[in-house]
Amino acid sequence: MASEGNCLGWAARDSSGTLSPYKFSRREPGADDVSFKITHCGICYAEVVWLFNKLGDAKYPMVPGHEIVGIVTAVGSNVSNFQKGERVGVGCIVGSCRDCEFCDDGKENYCAKRTVATYNGVDVDGTITKGGYSSYVVVHQRYVVKIPEKLPLHFAAPLLCAGITVYSPMKRHGMDTPGKHLGVIGLGGLGHMAVKFGKAFGLKVSVLSTSPGKREEALTVLGADNFIVTSNEAELKAAEKSMDYIIDTASGEHPLDNFITLLKTSGVIVLVGVPHVCSFAPINLILGMKTISGSMIGGIKETQDMINFCAEHEVHPLIEIVPISYANKAIERLRNKDVRYRFVIDIADSLHDV
Amino acid sequence: MASEGNCLGWAARDSSGTLSPYKFSRREPGADDVSFKITHCGICYAEVVWLFNKLGDAKYPMVPGHEIVGIVTAVGSNVSNFQKGERVGVGCIVGSCRDCEFCDDGKENYCAKRTVATYNGVDVDGTITKGGYSSYVVVHQRYVVKIPEKLPLHFAAPLLCAGITVYSPMKRHGMDTPGKHLGVIGLGGLGHMAVKFGKAFGLKVSVLSTSPGKREEALTVLGADNFIVTSNEAELKAAEKSMDYIIDTASGEHPLDNFITLLKTSGVIVLVGVPHVCSFAPINLILGMKTISGSMIGGIKETQDMINFCAEHEVHPLIEIVPISYANKAIERLRNKDVRYRFVIDIADSLHDV
Repeated sequence: MASEGNCLGWAARDSSGTLSPYKFSRREPGADDVSFKITHCGICYAEVVWLFNKLGDAKYPMVPGHEIVGIVTAVGSNVSNFQKGERVGVGCIVGSCRDCEFCDDGKENYCAKRTVATYNGVDVDGTITKGGYSSYVVVHQRYVVKIPEKLPLHFAAPLLCAGITVYSPMKRHGMDTPGKHLGVIGLGGLGHMAVKFGKAFGLKVSVLSTSPGKREEALTVLGADNFIVTSNEAELKAAEKSMDYIIDTASGEHPLDNFITLLKTSGVIVLVGVPHVCSFAPINLILGMKTISGSMIGGIKETQDMINFCAEHEVHPLIEIVPISYANKAIERLRNKDVRYRFVIDIADSLHDV
Repeated sequence: MASEGNCLGWAARDSSGTLSPYKFSRREPGADDVSFKITHCGICYAEVVWLFNKLGDAKYPMVPGHEIVGIVTAVGSNVSNFQKGERVGVGCIVGSCRDCEFCDDGKENYCAKRTVATYNGVDVDGTITKGGYSSYVVVHQRYVVKIPEKLPLHFAAPLLCAGITVYSPMKRHGMDTPGKHLGVIGLGGLGHMAVKFGKAFGLKVSVLSTSPGKREEALTVLGADNFIVTSNEAELKAAEKSMDYIIDTASGEHPLDNFITLLKTSGVIVLVGVPHVCSFAPINLILGMKTISGSMIGGIKETQDMINFCAEHEVHPLIEIVPISYANKAIERLRNKDVRYRFVIDIADSLHDV
């Protein structure tokens, strides 16, 4: 290989997004760092955005992956909360100022100064961060969470982005009140986790999807109570003013009015997908003092809380485990929405020096 | 006059919106009713909408007015909270189911079954409600508020729609925390009240307006701390991420992104004006877990609370008092945004049989 270093990963060299083996160096663990061998890494929709430079900020070679779990191999001298052999994970961020009101409040994801993304980010030392499609990682202890024994590592990986992205706003907006009615728009990585959390919280859950073919699985496998095809006006009409909250995971353009009208008075729709533009008629918000709110991943403490909740209540993502050699194909399938509902790369068993 | 009845008002006969004298009958006060002689009635932007049938639901002859104050002349046998000679007012609604969760919670304005609008509404007896451009009114006691002696009646009138429309969401979203920064978009009837409440609550207040000519008055007469011309990119840029909340009173089409970016993380923009459509980039909400929320007038108890607050803290609207004969001209000026900041009709001194 053309590159050398202490860590083996798979990287894209340009905006073709094609991944192939790549050796690079990670820093020696510092006093506050945790170093861990990666066993699994989830494949997030973020890869479809960043690998192909959709936002224009791609930094190649890019080693993707921000749903990372594994086993601790070394800890720095200041680290007492983690030890060698422990099961741990890291999600979307590996740095923040650790000094602002948001960091102090456990909302490192909204750090006032800057967050460091787990990949394609600029680290404190100026290097470009490299993610979990690799053999090991070195992360400041602040951004590492513990994975309880009860939670299989391959199930834990997708929770670190897809899981926390829906869990955080669900908790913040009180969507854990048993008996309330939750709508979930879009049944992908994020959406299927919202359904799972909704049922674990004791909610009535309605799935809203463009795909009639997902009805059976939503109702039986995922346990949703109701399924609405978003192009079916009669089904939408029947659900008017019935929902207390909606989690909108759709990332394509879509008008919000059809969904706002499903909310009861004082209802809340939270956007976690990222369409370019949304439009709505303000009268639809005003007549029922309704709310549109945004949310982005979650803080470290609430990520730990979520992981613990999932371990205790056996809230597991539905996943397809693949070897690293399948990564390019998996990402192609993800672009085509051909995934139920998250790919997880088995790094430990498939990433080896060639 | 062609019509007969016990009450003299001014009505529009068709969508020309032109008002002229009109006699009609009001019901005899029932056991739960309060009857009061009208002294003043504010001219609301709602008149520009309804008189000219902009929503297609106008019912002529239409007697407008839903910012009504006056002196009690009679009360029904079940009424113990009001007495003859007392100063009272009624705002935008004169009926609701009084039995749903919202009515029970003091949010009659969001009644689950129906609210009865003070004018152009359908009353419980099937008649069309007629508003405060008239000599007296008969209203169920539930929808009547008291006007303290300390608050001049002409100042109280605009509070009953313009005032409560901004006060209610400001209280609901915690915009009464001293030292926080409030942005107010649009400096009309609602906007100037939001500035006044903001200063009374101890906030820093920035006015956002399309009209550079309003700067001096906003800063000196209204007491705003800052004035931003919404077409001035440098002024907008300087205010980025500086505001805790925004009250948006603009009723013309406008993209929200320029304003969302002014909010700090977790900031809230409340829409109380009614443009047909709004658009925004979800990423702007998501990156800072920001919120867009709607709000419509307020409940009866909070209207009374607001009136009491205004009396105690001398929060008075800026008004121009006009005779009923000036109503058509006033509404024309309102359409042209030529008002600072609310017309109030002196009914007692100008509405007489001809």
